[in-house]
Amino acid sequence: MEIMQVEGPMVCTRRVDGLRDIGMRVLRDSAGNQVVAVDPVGARPGNWVFTSSGSAARYAAGDFRILTDLTVAGIIDFWDADTGQ
Amino acid sequence: MEIMQVEGPMVCTRRVDGLRDIGMRVLRDSAGNQVVAVDPVGARPGNWVFTSSGSAARYAAGDFRILTDLTVAGIIDFWDADTGQ
Amino acid sequence: MEIMQVEGPMVCTRRVDGLRDIGMRVLRDSAGNQVVAVDPVGARPGNWVFTSSGSAARYAAGDFRILTDLTVAGIIDFWDADTGQ
Amino acid sequence: MEIMQVEGPMVCTRRVDGLRDIGMRVLRDSAGNQVVAVDPVGARPGNWVFTSSGSAARYAAGDFRILTDLTVAGIIDFWDADTGQ
Amino acid sequence: MEIMQVEGPMVCTRRVDGLRDIGMRVLRDSAGNQVVAVDPVGARPGNWVFTSSGSAARYAAGDFRILTDLTVAGIIDFWDADTGQ
Repeated sequence: MEIMQVEGPMVCTRRVDGLRDIGMRVLRDSAGNQVVAVDPVGARPGNWVFTSSGSAARYAAGDFRILTDLTVAGIIDFWDADTGQ
Repeated sequence: MEIMQVEGPMVCTRRVDGLRDIGMRVLRDSAGNQVVAVDPVGARPGNWVFTSSGSAARYAAGDFRILTDLTVAGIIDFWDADTGQ
Repeated sequence: MEIMQVEGPMVCTRRVDGLRDIGMRVLRDSAGNQVVAVDPVGARPGNWVFTSSGSAARYAAGDFRILTDLTVAGIIDFWDADTGQ
Repeated sequence: MEIMQVEGPMVCTRRVDGLRDIGMRVLRDSAGNQVVAVDPVGARPGNWVFTSSGSAARYAAGDFRILTDLTVAGIIDFWDADTGQ
Repeated sequence: MEIMQVEGPMVCTRRVDGLRDIGMRVLRDSAGNQVVAVDPVGARPGNWVFTSSGSAARYAAGDFRILTDLTVAGIIDFWDADTGQ
């Protein structure tokens, strides 16, 4: 699982059926890239989270048929990005 | 899911059977590389989209037997590539 | 799917059973690395192709039990590597 | 499988159900990035381990329904990071 | 599939059950990183091999329940690392 920071919600009016009612977030990964994840745990902007990718992301979303390839799996307590602790 | 921009259609007369009737797009990813995706949502050149990869891409294409590993999952509203918002 | 160029056949006398009768090609990806793919469409050296990876590669090979993680999915018409069109 | 070094435990009070009782570790990969893995073998900080990713990570965790995409698969004996032996 | 060179055996006394009786090798990939793979074909140090990753690696290992994400799929004949032929 990778460690990322939440930037904010993803606004998207037109998407495939499998994602209709799921909250999505824009995250920033360790390389500085922005990616999109579904969020079943309710993370807020600024939170440090860890994410599950691949087929595990569909399990993490609570429904294996959901099309996500990246899901927020948990919010990390006490994370300092500078020291990595 | 990754954020990419649509460049245009992909023209390909000879391909494996599993892709025969599906619209394909050339996209550019955040690293500047061109990749190919199936597009069930009808994105246009210039649109910012987010994509689903891996086995989720087959779910997103609406038929798990389709061989794609990258599918356009939605069109992003109000995306500014420079600010990332 | 990624865009790659065919370099030539892969010669390999000793391999796992699941690959015994399948044609394999050496391709060069956009980063300049050489990779190996199975080729059910009959691409020739110099052809620009797009490839399917992961579990989709097994579908693309026409038999889900084949062990490939990269399969040539189609030959691109009219591709110019310099302009990317 | 990749070779990584264990940094320490991951503290996380809020996570998806599928991870509830599993020990997690922060690892550092060969590129210097910190990642999160489940650990069924009991690795300690400083140990060199190899990890299994993707759907194999769920098998390695002992339960295919677990949502992890990275699992510690074993502790390497006699590993010298400088010489890579 | 990727092209890698065998460095040597992997010594590991403590690992998850699913890997108990399988020979493992340390390989070096095209980026110079060391990775770990299971080897059902009997490659020797110095051999150039191609590897299958992801869920295909479990098929290549001869048993889908094995947890590997990287398996040696074949030994390449006549490979010159400098020219890539």
